[in-house]
Amino acid sequence: MAAKEELKLLGVDVSPFAIRAHMAVVIKGVSCEYVVEDLSNKSELLLSSNPVYKKVPVLIHNGKPICESLVIVQYVDEIFSGDGVPSILPTDPYERAIARFWAAYVDDKFFPVLRGIVLALTEQERVEKATETLAAIEPLEEAFAMCSKGKAFFSGDSIGYVDLALGSLLVWIEAIRRMYNIEIISASKTPRLSAWAERFGESAAAKEVLPEVDKAVQFGKMLEAAASAAAASK
Amino acid sequence: MAAKEELKLLGVDVSPFAIRAHMAVVIKGVSCEYVVEDLSNKSELLLSSNPVYKKVPVLIHNGKPICESLVIVQYVDEIFSGDGVPSILPTDPYERAIARFWAAYVDDKFFPVLRGIVLALTEQERVEKATETLAAIEPLEEAFAMCSKGKAFFSGDSIGYVDLALGSLLVWIEAIRRMYNIEIISASKTPRLSAWAERFGESAAAKEVLPEVDKAVQFGKMLEAAASAAAASK
Repeated sequence: MAAKEELKLLGVDVSPFAIRAHMAVVIKGVSCEYVVEDLSNKSELLLSSNPVYKKVPVLIHNGKPICESLVIVQYVDEIFSGDGVPSILPTDPYERAIARFWAAYVDDKFFPVLRGIVLALTEQERVEKATETLAAIEPLEEAFAMCSKGKAFFSGDSIGYVDLALGSLLVWIEAIRRMYNIEIISASKTPRLSAWAERFGESAAAKEVLPEVDKAVQFGKMLEAAASAAAASK
Repeated sequence: MAAKEELKLLGVDVSPFAIRAHMAVVIKGVSCEYVVEDLSNKSELLLSSNPVYKKVPVLIHNGKPICESLVIVQYVDEIFSGDGVPSILPTDPYERAIARFWAAYVDDKFFPVLRGIVLALTEQERVEKATETLAAIEPLEEAFAMCSKGKAFFSGDSIGYVDLALGSLLVWIEAIRRMYNIEIISASKTPRLSAWAERFGESAAAKEVLPEVDKAVQFGKMLEAAASAAAASK
């Protein structure tokens, strides 16, 4: 670690991907300037730091950009380590592999169908996406039992890699419940995740970083309208 | 590392994802039983080891399964390390983050459009996918210059993480050239990757693991026919 660290994170409050990166930095207890991007007028710094995707989050560490949320979380975990600093990824290589598997599952299988609920153009499509999302959460309920081994979080006693991957979507899961009355995590169907979600929300890092659900609802309505407008103009 | 390692890899010769995992094990110089799966009649071991995706590759290390090719490559790199054992991921955390970014780019952005060429149902769709693939290779040509810093591979003097991610697709890139006369990597348009691809193919690990291009062509024709049949039966 350099003597003087300059850490800047470009994000958007309701972006689950920015939430992960931001929470990782907060968990590590390092000081970081959080810069909120205006997605309708992206900064030059964002465009030049992430020329491939032009998306948040981007972490800029001593002038060097790192893109992609899970890459950022791993980077932050590796750079800021040592006595008394919480680990985000498990230290055991096998447990680390399992954590990487489930974090990738969240992004590759769960998130696309979850987002599909908001972007659906018809009620039928929304029902289909809701069904797919409910199916996609089931393996995560099992994974929690397997990974947590009876502890509070996927990684044990404190928030870790899979917790951040899935936990960053909780605001959207709640927004979708309010918008469409679709319950993806519930005490009846996913009791373990339901209790986990409560614990996650009560953590200091979540309290510091998570936006109000209303903000996600507002943003969701905007996404929904934009998807309809794009479909209508085709 | 345990005194006696039992390593088994379930794969399919032409699967780029299995190729990566297999090459990683070969690069590490560890002994590993490679088991070819019959995709039309998957083994119980595959189904029980990867219940979520039921796909190759799966690495089974002392009885414990690890799924997803890039997770396997990272696991193998972490488990088999030490003096004289080549590193697959860079040791510098920033370079490691950059390697993870580009490997994810290969899987998220490049591979889907490349596969789309084979699965296209019409000539027009194939041309569209080819155009998208040619656009998607461009950032990788730039990335090579940035990452390799004038050396032979993305990771320096030997095959590393991004080399495995993209290099495992070279057999398919060549198969697509033979099948459709579409040149994705060429001396004229992507000179750096063109020279890199030649070096990659000449490496000991590639020579040991890569299947004949004809096998990929055969498999590609099967995929093409299956896609057409699926579309016709809708």
